[in-house]
Amino acid sequence: MSLPPLSLSILGVEPLDEFIKEIADFVHYTIINRPPDLQGKVEVEAKVGQLVDTSSNRRLELPILVETIIAPQSIPLRFESNMSVEQHKHFNTRLNELQNSSMQPGFPSSPLGYVHLKLYGLRETTKTGKVLECMRKIRLGDLNIYSPKRAVDWRVSVNLEVPVSHPIGSPTHTRKKDRLSYSHEEFSIDLTQVTASTPNGPPTVMHELEIEIARPTLLLATAAKRGDPNAPELERSAFDELIRAFVNNARILVRNANEGWQP
Amino acid sequence: MSLPPLSLSILGVEPLDEFIKEIADFVHYTIINRPPDLQGKVEVEAKVGQLVDTSSNRRLELPILVETIIAPQSIPLRFESNMSVEQHKHFNTRLNELQNSSMQPGFPSSPLGYVHLKLYGLRETTKTGKVLECMRKIRLGDLNIYSPKRAVDWRVSVNLEVPVSHPIGSPTHTRKKDRLSYSHEEFSIDLTQVTASTPNGPPTVMHELEIEIARPTLLLATAAKRGDPNAPELERSAFDELIRAFVNNARILVRNANEGWQP
Repeated sequence: MSLPPLSLSILGVEPLDEFIKEIADFVHYTIINRPPDLQGKVEVEAKVGQLVDTSSNRRLELPILVETIIAPQSIPLRFESNMSVEQHKHFNTRLNELQNSSMQPGFPSSPLGYVHLKLYGLRETTKTGKVLECMRKIRLGDLNIYSPKRAVDWRVSVNLEVPVSHPIGSPTHTRKKDRLSYSHEEFSIDLTQVTASTPNGPPTVMHELEIEIARPTLLLATAAKRGDPNAPELERSAFDELIRAFVNNARILVRNANEGWQP
Repeated sequence: MSLPPLSLSILGVEPLDEFIKEIADFVHYTIINRPPDLQGKVEVEAKVGQLVDTSSNRRLELPILVETIIAPQSIPLRFESNMSVEQHKHFNTRLNELQNSSMQPGFPSSPLGYVHLKLYGLRETTKTGKVLECMRKIRLGDLNIYSPKRAVDWRVSVNLEVPVSHPIGSPTHTRKKDRLSYSHEEFSIDLTQVTASTPNGPPTVMHELEIEIARPTLLLATAAKRGDPNAPELERSAFDELIRAFVNNARILVRNANEGWQP
């Protein structure tokens, strides 16, 4: 007894993905309503980490079984964008493998690019004193995603990167970033080791993973056309397609935070 | 500036749908572990209704933005399988329209069937005293789905329908069901008006909507082959395909509980 081929649904199509739609609505709203007086680069990123209940100082626990989006300002919590050295190494290994296999014929997606960067953040200089980067990141909004089946939660952020004038005087602290940056189509996946040091105390080392929409100008162009009845269908839906692939990739990273490497 | 075609993800495929997987795992586990001594028909259904917080007697409220599955036994709640007369009428109109349009050429899915039934439940007889149905429904397990964006929540249930011997004596109460039953591929969608009356008191009228997997034997056959490494891929994945279409249809019904008719 075997199953005859099934339609996707009684309507013949997939139902709306409420989760992806919610994230797309949030990102779109935040971009469209950003402060008009601030000139800067719009950054949309998903960070992998843990949602911490600030009353218990432990990972958030809700009586639900699968990933969901937390209502903003509903629960006292913070997001810790950090992972273990083992998780960092696991992602490094798997992303390198993926990068290699993506070059082979028959791979079902585009090849991944790769670059190794060393970055020095705001008010920070290299040993020779040259300022490499001077940006201020202004947070426009976040959505927290609780993922009880996985070792990690995640956060979608919309930021504005505003150039600032070069700092004067000697840095009060340094934040050194060692970044493995993978690129895939419209996204960059950054695996970063952040070493922060202050004059008085040992340096702290954090491990971060984030996926970012690579081209802010494309992001803004698609956001402007979203749902525009005068735009051709392809342009009208481009923003939602971009966010769908962004969420798909974030879900794959989150699912594989511990072991294996599965869709 | 337009968006180049995107891959589904860095792996070239859709990520796992955690929500559908959770429901499939639950249904599979409940079927496989059903009491071996009870002979009966396995019924898998999704009912539309509301999750009621028993401490406040109001609809459940959780600090989350999109549909999710409630952990069993985690919150004191009950499920009310009821809707307003207007919702019932809305579904009736839309399902009739869908049934008509599904007969037209170019419809992206199979045509829907339709039948109007009048049923009399357990320990109940028709006016002429003929017993039409005598089944006892044994509840094996439920999963509650909270859907804060929609007017309704839903519940997936696995039941065992066991035939019972004909009742003796006169009925203590009557439950009359007026059912509009739509069929689509492996599913039946039942829109039912239930009139319950007792000897002392006015009758109560409830409106129910549920979708059910139509062929218990097919359900059991696919469940038995799920993940079986010796079965061909098509048979191995048939159970998950069946549950996917079941969940897709339930999501479409839930989304359209109030107005419109969208995927």
